[in-house]
Amino acid sequence: MNVIPDNFLGLDAAASDYRKARYAILPIPYDSTVSYQVGTRNGPRAIITASQQVELFDEEYKREFFAAGIATLPPIAPDMAGPEHMHEVIHEAARKVVRDGKILIGLGGEHSISSGLVRAVLGKFKRLSVLQIDAHADLRAEYEGTPYSHASVMRRVVEMGVPIVQVGIRNYSLEEHRFMTRARLAPISVRELRENPDWIQKAVDGLTEDVFVTIDIDGFDPAYAPGTGTPEPGGMDWFQVTTLLKAVAMHRRIVAADVVEVLPLPGSAQTEFLAAKLIYKLISHIEMNRRGR
Amino acid sequence: MNVIPDNFLGLDAAASDYRKARYAILPIPYDSTVSYQVGTRNGPRAIITASQQVELFDEEYKREFFAAGIATLPPIAPDMAGPEHMHEVIHEAARKVVRDGKILIGLGGEHSISSGLVRAVLGKFKRLSVLQIDAHADLRAEYEGTPYSHASVMRRVVEMGVPIVQVGIRNYSLEEHRFMTRARLAPISVRELRENPDWIQKAVDGLTEDVFVTIDIDGFDPAYAPGTGTPEPGGMDWFQVTTLLKAVAMHRRIVAADVVEVLPLPGSAQTEFLAAKLIYKLISHIEMNRRGR
Amino acid sequence: MNVIPDNFLGLDAAASDYRKARYAILPIPYDSTVSYQVGTRNGPRAIITASQQVELFDEEYKREFFAAGIATLPPIAPDMAGPEHMHEVIHEAARKVVRDGKILIGLGGEHSISSGLVRAVLGKFKRLSVLQIDAHADLRAEYEGTPYSHASVMRRVVEMGVPIVQVGIRNYSLEEHRFMTRARLAPISVRELRENPDWIQKAVDGLTEDVFVTIDIDGFDPAYAPGTGTPEPGGMDWFQVTTLLKAVAMHRRIVAADVVEVLPLPGSAQTEFLAAKLIYKLISHIEMNRRGR
Amino acid sequence: MNVIPDNFLGLDAAASDYRKARYAILPIPYDSTVSYQVGTRNGPRAIITASQQVELFDEEYKREFFAAGIATLPPIAPDMAGPEHMHEVIHEAARKVVRDGKILIGLGGEHSISSGLVRAVLGKFKRLSVLQIDAHADLRAEYEGTPYSHASVMRRVVEMGVPIVQVGIRNYSLEEHRFMTRARLAPISVRELRENPDWIQKAVDGLTEDVFVTIDIDGFDPAYAPGTGTPEPGGMDWFQVTTLLKAVAMHRRIVAADVVEVLPLPGSAQTEFLAAKLIYKLISHIEMNRRGR
Amino acid sequence: MNVIPDNFLGLDAAASDYRKARYAILPIPYDSTVSYQVGTRNGPRAIITASQQVELFDEEYKREFFAAGIATLPPIAPDMAGPEHMHEVIHEAARKVVRDGKILIGLGGEHSISSGLVRAVLGKFKRLSVLQIDAHADLRAEYEGTPYSHASVMRRVVEMGVPIVQVGIRNYSLEEHRFMTRARLAPISVRELRENPDWIQKAVDGLTEDVFVTIDIDGFDPAYAPGTGTPEPGGMDWFQVTTLLKAVAMHRRIVAADVVEVLPLPGSAQTEFLAAKLIYKLISHIEMNRRGR
Amino acid sequence: MNVIPDNFLGLDAAASDYRKARYAILPIPYDSTVSYQVGTRNGPRAIITASQQVELFDEEYKREFFAAGIATLPPIAPDMAGPEHMHEVIHEAARKVVRDGKILIGLGGEHSISSGLVRAVLGKFKRLSVLQIDAHADLRAEYEGTPYSHASVMRRVVEMGVPIVQVGIRNYSLEEHRFMTRARLAPISVRELRENPDWIQKAVDGLTEDVFVTIDIDGFDPAYAPGTGTPEPGGMDWFQVTTLLKAVAMHRRIVAADVVEVLPLPGSAQTEFLAAKLIYKLISHIEMNRRGR
Repeated sequence: MNVIPDNFLGLDAAASDYRKARYAILPIPYDSTVSYQVGTRNGPRAIITASQQVELFDEEYKREFFAAGIATLPPIAPDMAGPEHMHEVIHEAARKVVRDGKILIGLGGEHSISSGLVRAVLGKFKRLSVLQIDAHADLRAEYEGTPYSHASVMRRVVEMGVPIVQVGIRNYSLEEHRFMTRARLAPISVRELRENPDWIQKAVDGLTEDVFVTIDIDGFDPAYAPGTGTPEPGGMDWFQVTTLLKAVAMHRRIVAADVVEVLPLPGSAQTEFLAAKLIYKLISHIEMNRRGR
Repeated sequence: MNVIPDNFLGLDAAASDYRKARYAILPIPYDSTVSYQVGTRNGPRAIITASQQVELFDEEYKREFFAAGIATLPPIAPDMAGPEHMHEVIHEAARKVVRDGKILIGLGGEHSISSGLVRAVLGKFKRLSVLQIDAHADLRAEYEGTPYSHASVMRRVVEMGVPIVQVGIRNYSLEEHRFMTRARLAPISVRELRENPDWIQKAVDGLTEDVFVTIDIDGFDPAYAPGTGTPEPGGMDWFQVTTLLKAVAMHRRIVAADVVEVLPLPGSAQTEFLAAKLIYKLISHIEMNRRGR
Repeated sequence: MNVIPDNFLGLDAAASDYRKARYAILPIPYDSTVSYQVGTRNGPRAIITASQQVELFDEEYKREFFAAGIATLPPIAPDMAGPEHMHEVIHEAARKVVRDGKILIGLGGEHSISSGLVRAVLGKFKRLSVLQIDAHADLRAEYEGTPYSHASVMRRVVEMGVPIVQVGIRNYSLEEHRFMTRARLAPISVRELRENPDWIQKAVDGLTEDVFVTIDIDGFDPAYAPGTGTPEPGGMDWFQVTTLLKAVAMHRRIVAADVVEVLPLPGSAQTEFLAAKLIYKLISHIEMNRRGR
Repeated sequence: MNVIPDNFLGLDAAASDYRKARYAILPIPYDSTVSYQVGTRNGPRAIITASQQVELFDEEYKREFFAAGIATLPPIAPDMAGPEHMHEVIHEAARKVVRDGKILIGLGGEHSISSGLVRAVLGKFKRLSVLQIDAHADLRAEYEGTPYSHASVMRRVVEMGVPIVQVGIRNYSLEEHRFMTRARLAPISVRELRENPDWIQKAVDGLTEDVFVTIDIDGFDPAYAPGTGTPEPGGMDWFQVTTLLKAVAMHRRIVAADVVEVLPLPGSAQTEFLAAKLIYKLISHIEMNRRGR
Repeated sequence: MNVIPDNFLGLDAAASDYRKARYAILPIPYDSTVSYQVGTRNGPRAIITASQQVELFDEEYKREFFAAGIATLPPIAPDMAGPEHMHEVIHEAARKVVRDGKILIGLGGEHSISSGLVRAVLGKFKRLSVLQIDAHADLRAEYEGTPYSHASVMRRVVEMGVPIVQVGIRNYSLEEHRFMTRARLAPISVRELRENPDWIQKAVDGLTEDVFVTIDIDGFDPAYAPGTGTPEPGGMDWFQVTTLLKAVAMHRRIVAADVVEVLPLPGSAQTEFLAAKLIYKLISHIEMNRRGR
Repeated sequence: MNVIPDNFLGLDAAASDYRKARYAILPIPYDSTVSYQVGTRNGPRAIITASQQVELFDEEYKREFFAAGIATLPPIAPDMAGPEHMHEVIHEAARKVVRDGKILIGLGGEHSISSGLVRAVLGKFKRLSVLQIDAHADLRAEYEGTPYSHASVMRRVVEMGVPIVQVGIRNYSLEEHRFMTRARLAPISVRELRENPDWIQKAVDGLTEDVFVTIDIDGFDPAYAPGTGTPEPGGMDWFQVTTLLKAVAMHRRIVAADVVEVLPLPGSAQTEFLAAKLIYKLISHIEMNRRGR
C-alpha cells in the first residue's frame, strides 16, 4: 500500500519529522469572527489536501527543497468562548513552535489568527516587521464588538510596535484612512504596482531584517483566488506576488509566515491549490537565499 | 410595480405592522459556536425568502390565518465578542418583543440562540415548559470551551428550572445520558414514535400550560430537511411533526417558538421552504385553538 | 464504437424509430413564465440523459417493454414572444404526434406546457379526462400578467370542458379554493391518501375512459424529488404514485402523459432519474394492460 | 440592534432617502427571453447583498461619496405576458425616476431591459448616446421570435436614433456584421484595446455630451466575472473598464447607467461583488467630475 | 491542542490501535470501472470525516462500543493498470487484515472492490455467505469490457461458491434475470419488504453461520442516501436496513462487511453521515451479540 | 420546430455531414487513470453543448468558417478493462478518421487519450511533430502502475520518435527533469513567455511541417480555465494561446489536434465555453492559411 501521507506536500516520515524540520505548518481552522461569507475554517484541510498534488521539484530553480524538513502539526481546535480566548490559544501554540526554532507557517482560517502568531514570533525576534499582502487594510480599532476581529488584526500588530508594509490594499474605511495618516502608513495599491516600476524596492525598504509575511489570499485578484470571503476586484496576480516574495527572501530574513482567508468553493480546488503552491514557492525562495545568513 | 414585500410570507403593510401583529418573527443569523458544517447564519434570510412562496390559504383548515398579523423584525446583528455577549444581545431583543405582548418566533441560526429566547419568555410566563424537537439532546455542561454552545443549550434551559420534553432525539453522549438519568429526562426517540401509538399524548402530558416550542430542523429526517449541519438519519417526517404541533396547540398554550439550524444548501430551497411552511402551519394551529383560551 | 444512442432509454434505431413507435417523447425545454426558482428548461435534457441508465427489464413484471417502440423527438425550440405564442407552438407540435397515432409523452419544462398538450390530445379523444398529480392546484384565473402561466394551467384545462382528478394537492390560494367549490373539484390531499384506504378507487372513479396523466414532479415529497422549483413538504412517495398509475392503467386507457417541473440540481441526478424511471414504469403499466383494449 | 439596512451599499435612512438622493438604483429581476444559461433574475438581489460589503471610502480619491444620496427602489415585478409587455413596464418605471431628476442605475436581469431604460432616459435627454461595454453586439433584428430579446437590444437602441459606442465586443453574427457595416458601427475589440493606446480617446470621441452607460458584465473576461450566461474568453479586465469609465465621467455627462447579465453562481459572490463595486466606482467618478457641469 | 484524531470515529490512540482492535476499517478510494456518475473515490475520506461527528454512545443500547477497538488503516492507493490488477491489490491488503484476526470493514469506492474483500475473507471462513443490500443485482457476466466491473461483482462472488442473499434489489437486466433463474436466486424486492412481514426471517434463513455484509448505499432510497451514482427510487429506509442488520447480528456471525458507492455531493454530508452511523450501528449490533459466540 | 442540432457548433446536416467534412470531432469521455479530481469524462459533452452558443462568424477575420464541414462523431464508449485496452480502442477509432482524410480533433477526457490519437495520425504523417500546450510535462515513465497514464502520455509520444515542443509547462518532477535533459527537451515556461519576445518564433522553429496540436486546458491559467483537475497557477492567457496557434497555422500544417482535461464545474460553463471557442478559432486559423498548402 503505497499511499501519500496526509501532511503538507504528502512528505514521508523523514521529511516531515517535526524534530528535524526547519519549517512547521500550523493549521488553524477558525472563522468565528466572520459575519459575511463563512467557511475559511475549511481552508487548512483543503490546502493540505491540495498540496499533495504540488510537485516537489521547483521548475524555476531546477531543484527540490523539501529535504529541509517541513512538519505538519495537528490543527488547533477552535475555542468557542470568544476571539480573545482563541487569540491566547493560538499564541500559546505558536510560541512553542518558535521556541523550538522552527520557521512557523500558519494556515488560516480567518485573518484574526495572525495577531497571535505575530505576537509569538515577536517574542523571539524583537525587531520584527510584517509584510502584509491583502486587499483590506484590517486596521479598524474593533469590529462587530471585538478588537480581535479579522478586520482589526493589523491594528493589533501595529500596537505591538511592529512596522508593517502593506501591498495590494484596495479597500479600507475612512476611519482606517485616518489611522493610516496618523501612523504614517502608505499602502502600495495595485494601481501603484502597475504604474511604479520600483514598487518592489519600496516594499523591501520598508521592512526590517526579520520579516513575518502574512498573505491574505484576497490580496490576489479573485480571478486567481476566487475562494475567499470578500473577493475584491482589481487585485494582484501570481507573478506580482511571487516576484515580491523572491525579492524579500533575497534581501531580508523571512522568519515566519501565514496564508489566510482561503475559503474552499464547492467543486473547485483552484484557490487552495494556489495557496499550497505559494507556500512551497515561499519555502523555495527562503531556502535558496539562506546560505549567507 | 406590484412587488412582494420582503418580510415573512411577503405580507402587505397592514398584515405585517408590528404594532398590530400577534406574532413577531425575529431573525438571528448567528452561528459562531459551530465547528463542523457552518452556514446556519444564512438560515433566516433563506427562510424569509422561501416563505414568500408559501400559500396563505391553509388547505387543511380551508382558511387564511395571516390576518392575525405577523411582523418581521430586522435581524439581530451578530456580536463577535463571544457567545456569552451574544446570549445577552439576544435576550435583550427578545425581552422587548415579549413585553410588547407578541408571540415571539425566533429564526436561527444555530441552536444556542434558544437559551436567550427562553430566558426572555420565562420573564413573562413563569410556569413555562419547552417542547424540543431535535436529533440531539443538547444537554452538555459545556462544549468547545463555552457553556453557551449549541450543544449545551437545553442544559442552560433546564438550569432555569424549566421542564422540557424532548422528541426525535437520537444522538447524545454518555455524559448527557447520565445527566438525563439524574434529571429524570426520558426523550421520546423516533423508535418510540414508531412503536408507541400514544407518544403524542405522552409528549403533551409532559408540558405545562405555557409552552415554548423549539424546533431544531435536524429533528426531521435529513430526507425532508437535508440542509442542516449534522444530518442524523432515522428522523421524523412532516406528518409526525405537524400532528404533534397540532396536539400541543389544542391542549396547551404556545407562547413562543423558534426554528433553528437551517443551513441553506446551494441550489436547493427544500429545507428553508419546509421551515417556512412549518412556521405558518404552527401559526395556523395556534390561531385555530386560541378562541377558548 | 459501442455507444449509447442519445435518446430516451438509449434505444437502438429499431426501437426508437418514430414511424414504428407506439410512444413519442416530446421534450419541451421551456420555463419563461416562472418567476421563483428557474431551470426546468434543463429538465428534458437531464431526464433523457438519466433515462440511459434505466434498466430496460422491469423487475415487477419480469419483462422488457421497449420493443413497443419509444421515439424521442427533437426538443421544441422556445418561442420568446410570450407564453401565448408558446402555447400555440406546443399545440402544433403535439397535434402532429397525436394525429400520427402515437401515445404522446411530454417532458417539461414548466407546467404551463400541459395546456397545449391536452388541447392537442382532446382534438382526437373527445371524452378525455386528466389525472393531475401535483402539489399545487394550478387553478388560478391568471398569474403574473398571463393566463398561460404554470399556475393557471389546469384552469385552462377545465375551461376546455375536460374533467380533472387532482391527487397530492397541498397548496392553493383562497381564489383557487373558491373556484374549486364552484367547479365541484375536491382534490385528494396527501392526508386523505394516508387516512382513506379507498383513495385509489376514488381517483379512478373520477376519470373517463380516455385519460391524460399530467405529473408535476412536485406531487412527490421533496425527499424523493428535490429538484423542483417549489418543494412542498408532505408529498407522495414512489409507491403511492406508481400504485395509482398501475390502477389507472388497469381500469382506464392512458392516451397521453407528461412529466413536468423537473429542475436539475447541481451534482445530483436524483430527480431526473426518478422521472425517467417513472415514465418507463408508466409505459410498462400501459403495455401490460393494453391487450384487452 | 445595529443592522445593515437592506439596500444598495447598506446605507442609512438619510443617505438612501429617495426624495433627496441623486442616484436611484432600480432592480429588474427579469430573464424570460434567455434560452441558454438562466438565472440573471437573481442578479439584482445578489448585487445588493454584495454591495453591503463594499467599503464606502474610495481609496483612489481618498473620499466617501455616498452622501450624494443613493436610493434603492423596490424591484420591478416580472410581467409574464411576454417581452413586449415587460418592455413597457420597465419604461414606465424608469420614466418616473428620470422625471424625478435622478441618475437612474438599472440592475439586471438580462440585457433586454436596457431598451426600456434608454427609451425613458431619451425622453429627457434628447441628444443621448450610449456607451456599451459588452462581449456581444446585441444587434440582431430579432431573436427566438421576439424583437425584445437580449440579443437585439442595441438594435432597438440604434432604431431610436441614439449613437452607440461598443467596447469589448468579440462575438457577433454575420447578420450583425452586415448591419454594423450599414450602420457604420465599428466596435472596439479587445484586440484593439491591447494594440491601440488611444482606444479610450476613440471611445470618448464617439459619444455625445449626455451618456447612458450600459455594462453587460460579460464585457469583462470570465476570469473576472465568471457569473454570466455566455462567458466569452478574451475579455476586458478591471483596470481597462474602470479607466474607460473615469475618462467618460471626466469628458462627458453620465446621466444614467445599467449593469446587466450578472448570473450568481452557487458558492461564489465574485461577480456580484465586482458589479457592486463597479457601480459605486462609477458613482465616485461621476461625483468627482460633476462640479464643472 | 485538543484535536480530534483523523480516523474513523475520531478515536484516541488506545481505541484505534491496530494491534488491539477487533475491527479494522480499510478505505479503498477506487472508482475506475464506473462510467456514469463518478466520484465514489471520494467516499472513504468523506465517511471518515463525517464519522468524527457520530456520537460514541448508542442511544438504543444505552452504551458505548468503541472500546472493542476500531483501527483505521491507510487507504489503498489506486492501481491504474486496470481492474484485474486492482482486484489483486485489494485482495492482498484484505487478506493480511483477515489473517490478523480483525473484523474487516471496507469503505468504497465502487462496488467492484467487494470481490477482492470477499475472496480474502473466504480464505479464512470457508462456509461464508454474503448478505447484499443493494438496488442492483450486480450479476452481469461482464460489463464495459471487464469481468471486474461494479456491475458484475456479485457474479464473481457467486462463482466463488458463496451463497448470497439479496435485499432491496430493484434494477437488473434480462441477462441477470436469466442468471438468477438458473442460479435459483430470488432477491427480496422492496415491494416484498412492504408486503411480507416475514422478510427479515427469510433473509436470515438464506445465510450461513458466517456472514459478509456488503451494503451498496443505493440500497437505501435516494431520499436517505442521495449521494450515489445511480439513485434508484423505491428503496429501503433507515429502520428497514438497521432492523435487518440487527437480526443478522443476533442469529448469525458477521465476520466482515463493506459499505460502497457513497458519492459525496457538494455542500451536503447527508449520505456519508448515514454511512458512518450505519457502520457504527453495525459494530454495536455485533458487539451486543458476540458474547455467546 | 427550429432546433439546434446536437453536434459541435450546432451545425445543420450539410455542414456536419461526415462524408463532406474536412474536420471530424471525436469525443472521448474517458478518465479512468485519474486519481485526484475526476470528471473530465464529462468534458466532451460539456464542450459540445457550449459550442452551440459559439458564434459562427469570426470577428477577427470577419468571416464564417464552418462551411469547410465539421462532423461530430459519436463518443467512444469507455473500455474498462484497463488503460492499455483503451489506448487500442482510441487508436482504432482515430485511425479510421485519419484514413478518411479528415483533420481529426479529439475531445477529452484525460490527457492519456492523446497517445492513441498521435499514433493514429503518425500512421499517415510520418514526419509529425507535436505542439503541447500544458501545465505539466507528462513525461513520466509510468504513473500509478501504468505507462498509459495521463502523467506519462508525452513520454509515450517521444518514444514514437515524434519531436515535441512544450509551452506553458510549470510543473514536473525531478525524474521528468532528468529525462528532459537526456532528451534535450527545453519547455517554454510561462516566465519565458513573459520575458522573451521571440518565444513564438522559438516554438514554431521546433516543429516539423506536419503538426499535431495537443492542448491540455490546464496550460491556461486557472483564472481562464478553472474547470480542470490540477489548476496550476501562473499559466497562459487567451491571447498568448491563440496568438501561438495563429503563428503555427501560418507557418506549419496542422493535421490534427485535441483539447483535453476539461472538467466541467457545477454551475459554470466558463471552461467548456473557452474550449469550444478555442477549437473553432483553431479551425479558423487553419482555414485562413490552407490556401497555399
